[in-house]
Amino acid sequence: MRNSNRQWTIAARPVGRDVVESDFALVEGPIRPPATGEVVVKVDLLGFDPALKGWMENIGGYVAPTSIGDVMRGSGIGSIIDPGDSGLAMGATVIGPLGWQDFATLPAGQLRTLENDSQLSAHLGVLGTTGLTAFCGLERVGKPFPGDTLVITGAAGAVGSVVGQIGKIGGCRVIGIAGGPDKCRMLTQELGFDGAIDYKAGPMTDALRELVPDGIDVLWDNVGGTMLDTLLGRLALKARVVICGGISRSKTGGMPVGPSNYFNLVFRRATMEGFILNDYEADYDRARQRLQGWLADGRLQSREDVQTGLENAPRTLMRLFEGANTGKQLLRVGD
Amino acid sequence: MRNSNRQWTIAARPVGRDVVESDFALVEGPIRPPATGEVVVKVDLLGFDPALKGWMENIGGYVAPTSIGDVMRGSGIGSIIDPGDSGLAMGATVIGPLGWQDFATLPAGQLRTLENDSQLSAHLGVLGTTGLTAFCGLERVGKPFPGDTLVITGAAGAVGSVVGQIGKIGGCRVIGIAGGPDKCRMLTQELGFDGAIDYKAGPMTDALRELVPDGIDVLWDNVGGTMLDTLLGRLALKARVVICGGISRSKTGGMPVGPSNYFNLVFRRATMEGFILNDYEADYDRARQRLQGWLADGRLQSREDVQTGLENAPRTLMRLFEGANTGKQLLRVGD
Repeated sequence: MRNSNRQWTIAARPVGRDVVESDFALVEGPIRPPATGEVVVKVDLLGFDPALKGWMENIGGYVAPTSIGDVMRGSGIGSIIDPGDSGLAMGATVIGPLGWQDFATLPAGQLRTLENDSQLSAHLGVLGTTGLTAFCGLERVGKPFPGDTLVITGAAGAVGSVVGQIGKIGGCRVIGIAGGPDKCRMLTQELGFDGAIDYKAGPMTDALRELVPDGIDVLWDNVGGTMLDTLLGRLALKARVVICGGISRSKTGGMPVGPSNYFNLVFRRATMEGFILNDYEADYDRARQRLQGWLADGRLQSREDVQTGLENAPRTLMRLFEGANTGKQLLRVGD
Repeated sequence: MRNSNRQWTIAARPVGRDVVESDFALVEGPIRPPATGEVVVKVDLLGFDPALKGWMENIGGYVAPTSIGDVMRGSGIGSIIDPGDSGLAMGATVIGPLGWQDFATLPAGQLRTLENDSQLSAHLGVLGTTGLTAFCGLERVGKPFPGDTLVITGAAGAVGSVVGQIGKIGGCRVIGIAGGPDKCRMLTQELGFDGAIDYKAGPMTDALRELVPDGIDVLWDNVGGTMLDTLLGRLALKARVVICGGISRSKTGGMPVGPSNYFNLVFRRATMEGFILNDYEADYDRARQRLQGWLADGRLQSREDVQTGLENAPRTLMRLFEGANTGKQLLRVGD
């Protein structure tokens, strides 16, 4: 095992442009020993999501601001190699805000202990913030009802693929929008979506007319921009639009392009609502229990894209904005 | 009394541009006698609102489409000069979809009889669709709570001025946005608004910082475009954005410019919702009763801008898009 600690720090803020490798700097130093209440965790697996870019930019205001030079934040799973005075077991598997580094020294209170089961990585995806985002956002904002048509942008991504599967469990007709035939095939043939639209294959008008003839009851948007605008033009009466992400903004500045079809909210008596997962902490246990049950009985499938090597952390984040990942983007750090 | 009927018909559709006089044609012909169930009404007063332009364009789909050559639609008040077989009284005062003409021949079932009180014109404004729009939209969508900051665009217009007054009755801090010092003075000095911002006086940033230091809890938008975009950037947590109108779109095409700050709905966990008054018909009687009560005890003031002469109907409609009116735009047709 290493006895030094590599850490990726924030070197620049990707405001109004794509994330690039030079936004990060790799530094190497000693492993910091634990202070009172702290433990040292060897990082095994890191999870990535588009919000990390927003945190680097300091937009949104729902997490503490980042500073240049900070170790890059990120959720991870690892094992305790120094429990300090915490009372946690040596070698215990834990999940928490470990950051982009080989070893994390942090308060034990920020960690949750995991059973060392076969689905460990799912705790960063389907059973982690990804699955909770899908569950809580649908339950509280999307409010799917049997027979509803649920349309999802970024449907082959981590959150999107869970949203669609929960929609199917809830009796919805689920149409996913994704980039490329492979992702679309995965949605319909592996995850049970009723239809998929490859937005890279050209204008979506014909496909929407065919697959969404009666309009969209629940629109789950991870993309924003012109795609959201197009879909707002096809809402059904009393539609609910869940704004979860706006990955199209990564290339266009602080905010995605505004959807001029927002005014269709009036004609369709529709609602557009944003949410931040943190607000629903009281729902986490119940949500996790249901997700775990669906995962166990096979109604919910976990899709993961696992890269390898801490040195590849920046490039792994960039995969999200290139649309290279299918399912949850992970990075295996350990040897 | 005339014995011929002047009618303004739709001559062209103002799609993607302002309404102009040549969008209408004045024709003159005989007064059509009533068929079974119909009456003839002498039109006294017509009400105008921005939705009329949308109806001419056939956008929205929530009213039957118009055709070129149709008599221009519009609500009005008049008196029955031929009750036909309806059983209504000769000379009775009625309100209904009379249209832009001297005499309307229409089914008695489309009319409501009014007491001939001193506030007759209020039935086209505060006690008509204007007041009902303000009441139902606030009750069902805006959901103001005592202490909330309620911001209204187009605040000196018919709907906006009622929204603000209901907000005051509901214990809100009410800030109106309007064009020009006269309208702003009216809002604060006559209608009891807590503040007013003249958007024509320059960028609203400083005024918003001063008057809305803690963010907007309820945003009532009649304008759309860049004004909506600016205000979306200043939402409080859990804000409700009521999309009622988008008068800025009159100059820019089918839909208003899209607000790129829509993504702030996520960071502020906010909701943006549109509504169409027709959906709340079950609420009309209750709403009208309360509005009437507030009007009677002086807590609600009716503001009207009355033009004269049927020949001026197109120019009267154009006043709305020029921002020339303060309060409800009316036209006195009768001699």
